[in-house]
Amino acid sequence: MQVIRQYIEEHKQRMLDELFDLLRFPSVSADPKYKADVLKTADYTAAKLREAGADNVEVCQTAGYPIVYGEKIIDSTKPTVLVYGHYDVQPPDPLELWETPPFEPTVRDGKIYARGACDDKGQFYMHVKAFELMMQTNTLPCNIKFMIEGEEEVGSNNLGIFVKGNRERLKADVVLISDTSMLSMETPSLETGLRGLSYLEVEVTGPNRDLHSGVYGGAVANPATILSKMIASLHDENNHITIPGFYDDVVELKDSEKDALNSAPYNEDEYKKDLGIDEVWGEKGYSTFERTGTRPTLEVNGIWSGYIGEGAKTVLPSKANAKISMRLVPNQGSDKITQLFTEHFSRIAPPYVKVKVTPHHGGEPVVTPTDSVAYQAAQKAITEAFGVEPVPTRGGGSIPIVALFEAELGVKTVLMGFGLDSDALHSPNEKYDIFNYYKGIETIPLFYKNFAALS
Amino acid sequence: MQVIRQYIEEHKQRMLDELFDLLRFPSVSADPKYKADVLKTADYTAAKLREAGADNVEVCQTAGYPIVYGEKIIDSTKPTVLVYGHYDVQPPDPLELWETPPFEPTVRDGKIYARGACDDKGQFYMHVKAFELMMQTNTLPCNIKFMIEGEEEVGSNNLGIFVKGNRERLKADVVLISDTSMLSMETPSLETGLRGLSYLEVEVTGPNRDLHSGVYGGAVANPATILSKMIASLHDENNHITIPGFYDDVVELKDSEKDALNSAPYNEDEYKKDLGIDEVWGEKGYSTFERTGTRPTLEVNGIWSGYIGEGAKTVLPSKANAKISMRLVPNQGSDKITQLFTEHFSRIAPPYVKVKVTPHHGGEPVVTPTDSVAYQAAQKAITEAFGVEPVPTRGGGSIPIVALFEAELGVKTVLMGFGLDSDALHSPNEKYDIFNYYKGIETIPLFYKNFAALS
Repeated sequence: MQVIRQYIEEHKQRMLDELFDLLRFPSVSADPKYKADVLKTADYTAAKLREAGADNVEVCQTAGYPIVYGEKIIDSTKPTVLVYGHYDVQPPDPLELWETPPFEPTVRDGKIYARGACDDKGQFYMHVKAFELMMQTNTLPCNIKFMIEGEEEVGSNNLGIFVKGNRERLKADVVLISDTSMLSMETPSLETGLRGLSYLEVEVTGPNRDLHSGVYGGAVANPATILSKMIASLHDENNHITIPGFYDDVVELKDSEKDALNSAPYNEDEYKKDLGIDEVWGEKGYSTFERTGTRPTLEVNGIWSGYIGEGAKTVLPSKANAKISMRLVPNQGSDKITQLFTEHFSRIAPPYVKVKVTPHHGGEPVVTPTDSVAYQAAQKAITEAFGVEPVPTRGGGSIPIVALFEAELGVKTVLMGFGLDSDALHSPNEKYDIFNYYKGIETIPLFYKNFAALS
Repeated sequence: MQVIRQYIEEHKQRMLDELFDLLRFPSVSADPKYKADVLKTADYTAAKLREAGADNVEVCQTAGYPIVYGEKIIDSTKPTVLVYGHYDVQPPDPLELWETPPFEPTVRDGKIYARGACDDKGQFYMHVKAFELMMQTNTLPCNIKFMIEGEEEVGSNNLGIFVKGNRERLKADVVLISDTSMLSMETPSLETGLRGLSYLEVEVTGPNRDLHSGVYGGAVANPATILSKMIASLHDENNHITIPGFYDDVVELKDSEKDALNSAPYNEDEYKKDLGIDEVWGEKGYSTFERTGTRPTLEVNGIWSGYIGEGAKTVLPSKANAKISMRLVPNQGSDKITQLFTEHFSRIAPPYVKVKVTPHHGGEPVVTPTDSVAYQAAQKAITEAFGVEPVPTRGGGSIPIVALFEAELGVKTVLMGFGLDSDALHSPNEKYDIFNYYKGIETIPLFYKNFAALS
C-alpha cells in the first residue's frame, strides 16, 4: 500500500488536472447539439488509456456514440477484470441554479464541482489512473480490459449490440464498476444490489385542440385534471403502488438481511435537514433504507400541460404529458412491469380522453452474492484502504447494463463506488470530493491484488 | 337597412384590407418582446378612428399600454354609447400548430385566420367601420365614445385607474362590447351574462433541490405526485368542486331561465365531433349550456414539474407548479373565491411539502337584464339584420371589466358579439368568418337606431 500511496502523492496534481480536462468536455448524450463534444470526449478517453499503457485502444463505432476499448493482457492464465464506465453526462439544466458553470470544474472546500464530476467521469477516471499506477509500479496482477461507453445517460441502446458482437474480446471473470456511492468515508460501504428501471412517457389527450377555458370549461374533461387524477391513483394512502400484480415477483428480505441493511448509520434529522423537508414519506412499514434499496417505487420525473410561460393564459389544454419511472427489485422484470403499467394506465383512463403510453429504456434489478470471490476481493480492499470493513448496502439507483453483462457475458459485477449521497447526481452543483477521488485510486489496485490472490 | 348594405358593398374590400393591416401587428401584451408592436397597434387604431370621423382622438398613456380614446358628440341631449374593445391579443404559441403564420392573415373557406382575428380585432374593428358608415350616410343618432385598451389579455390592470380618472369623459348610457360569440349565423344569440374569474398559480416544494430518483425515490414525497393528488381532490366523482364554501353564493337559475337557456340548439354529436372527443364531461345534474354558462368551474390551465425535455431523465423534482383558474357565476365574488381557494389549498397540503399560492387578476360575474332598453335595442337590431330573434345565452368566458364599468361608471353593458365557438380563441388557427365581420358592421348601426328610438 505504501507504494500505492507514494505514487499517488508524486502524481496527484497531474491526476487532478487530467480529470479537470475530462470534465470540461460537455459530453451531454441526451442533447444532439453537444454531438461534437461527446465525440471529443471519447477521443480524450482513448488517448489517456494509451498514455496509461493500454494496448489495442480503439474508439469503436456504434449506431450512436462510440465505445472506447483498451486492454492489457499480461498472462492469459491470470483472471481478467473488465472495467466499465461512461464518459457521457446528464444534461446540466437548470443552468441558473449552478453556482459555477457546469463544465468549468471548480474546487470549493475540497470538492470538485462540475457536471459529471462524480457521475461518471471522476469515478471511471480513477480506474485509468489506478491502471497507470499499477503499470508504472509493475504491480498489475490481472489482465485488464476497459469498456467506456458514451450513452449510459440515454439508455445505453447500442451497448448490448456491441457486447453481443464482441464476446471474445470482452471475455472476463468479473466486471468492475465505480458509479455508485458509499455511506461516508468514515463508514465505507459496498453495493450488494441495484434496483431495476422501467421508464415510460404517458400522454393524455382530451379535445383535439387547446380550448378557451371560459367557453368550454365545465363542459369537457380537462386532460391536466384527468392526468392528475390518474397519477394520484397510482399510490394509496400507505404509499403502496396500486397497479395490479406489481408486487407479485418482489422477494422480501430475510430478517437478517434487513438487520444488516438497517445497521448502516442513519440520522433522520440530518437527512431531513440536508433535503430541507419537515417529514420523510414512503411506503408504510419500511425504513428509509428499505424503501430506497429493497422496495420498488414509482415516481413522476416530469409533468407538463397547457400554458407554462409567464403570466396568465386561460386555456383548457388539449394534452397533458408525464414521464414516469419505476425502480424495481429482485425478481421483478423490467419488461413485465412496463407491460403491467401500460395495461393499467390505459384501463384506468376514463372515456373522455385517449391515452398513449411510450416505453423508454429499462433495466433489470441485480443482486451480487457477498460470498463471491469478486465481492470478497472488494471487501478486503476497502478494509485495507479504509481501516474498517464496508457495510453491505442495497442501491436505490439502476445500472441496467449490469444485468446485460450477466446475461450476455456470463459475468457478475462488483459495484465499488466512491461517491457520496451529497454529490447531487442529476442535479445542479454536482460534485465529487477530492479525497474520494484519490481514495478510489488507492483502493482499486488493492482490489486487483486480492482478486488475483483469491481466484 | 338598404343604405347600410349598400355602403358595405361599396367599401367591403377596403374594410377587409384595413382589418388585415390591423391583424399584422403582433400586439401580444403578455410578452415584453412585442412592446413596440403593441404601441404601433395603438397608433394604427387611433389613426383609423380619426379617418372614420372621430373627434378628440387620443392615445392615452397609462402605467402600461395606452388606451385609445375617440368620440363623436352630435347632441348632448341624445343618449351616449361607449364602445369598448381591445387591440392586444393572446400569445400565439404553440407556433408549430398554426397552418399559416399567426400574424399573416390568410383567408381559407371564407374565414380569416390570424391571432386576434376574432378576439378582439375583427370584432372591435366592426364598430370602427360601423361608425364610419353612420358618419358617411349621416345616420348617427347617438353620441358615441370609443375606449380601446391594450391590456385585456393580461388583466386590464390599468383600465380601472383610467376609468376612475376619466369619469366625465367616459360618461355614457350604455357600454357596447363585441367580444363574445353567437350560436351560429342561422341561430343568432345575445349574451345575457358572463362568468367571473379567479386565477392563481400554485407551487408545491418538496426537497430543496432536484434529487436522483433512484437514490431518493421512495424515501421522500415527490412534489409532482403531491400536486397531482391535491389537484385530483378538487373535484369529486360528480365533477363538483370540493372547496368548502365555494358554492355558497351561487344563484340557481329559475326553471324558466333554464328552459330559455336549453332552448338554444345543441347537437351533442356535432359538439363531440368538432372537439374530437368520445364523451363530454361535467358537473352531474346540469346540461352542457348550464355547465358553461351558469355553473362555476375550476380548470388547470397549466402544470409543470421536473424534466420535460427530450428523452429520459430520472429526476425527483424539487418543485411542481400549476396555473389554476375558476369561472364564477352570480353572486360569487372573485376576491372571496380566491381567498377560499388559497386557504383550502394550503390546508390540504400534507406536511411533507410547502405550498405557495399566488393570485393573478380576477373579475366579477355579470348579468344583463333582458328588459333593459339596451338589451331590447340589441335584440331588435339582430332580429332585423338576421330575420330571426336572438336566443338569450349565458357566456362561459369572463370579461372582468364589465363589472368594473358598472361599479365605476354606473352603466350596464350590452354584449353583442358576432364570433363563433369554432373561432378557436386562445388556440392555434384562430379565425373569424368574413360573413360575420360584415354582418356585424350591418347590425351595429341598427343597434344605434333602436337605442336612440327606445331611450
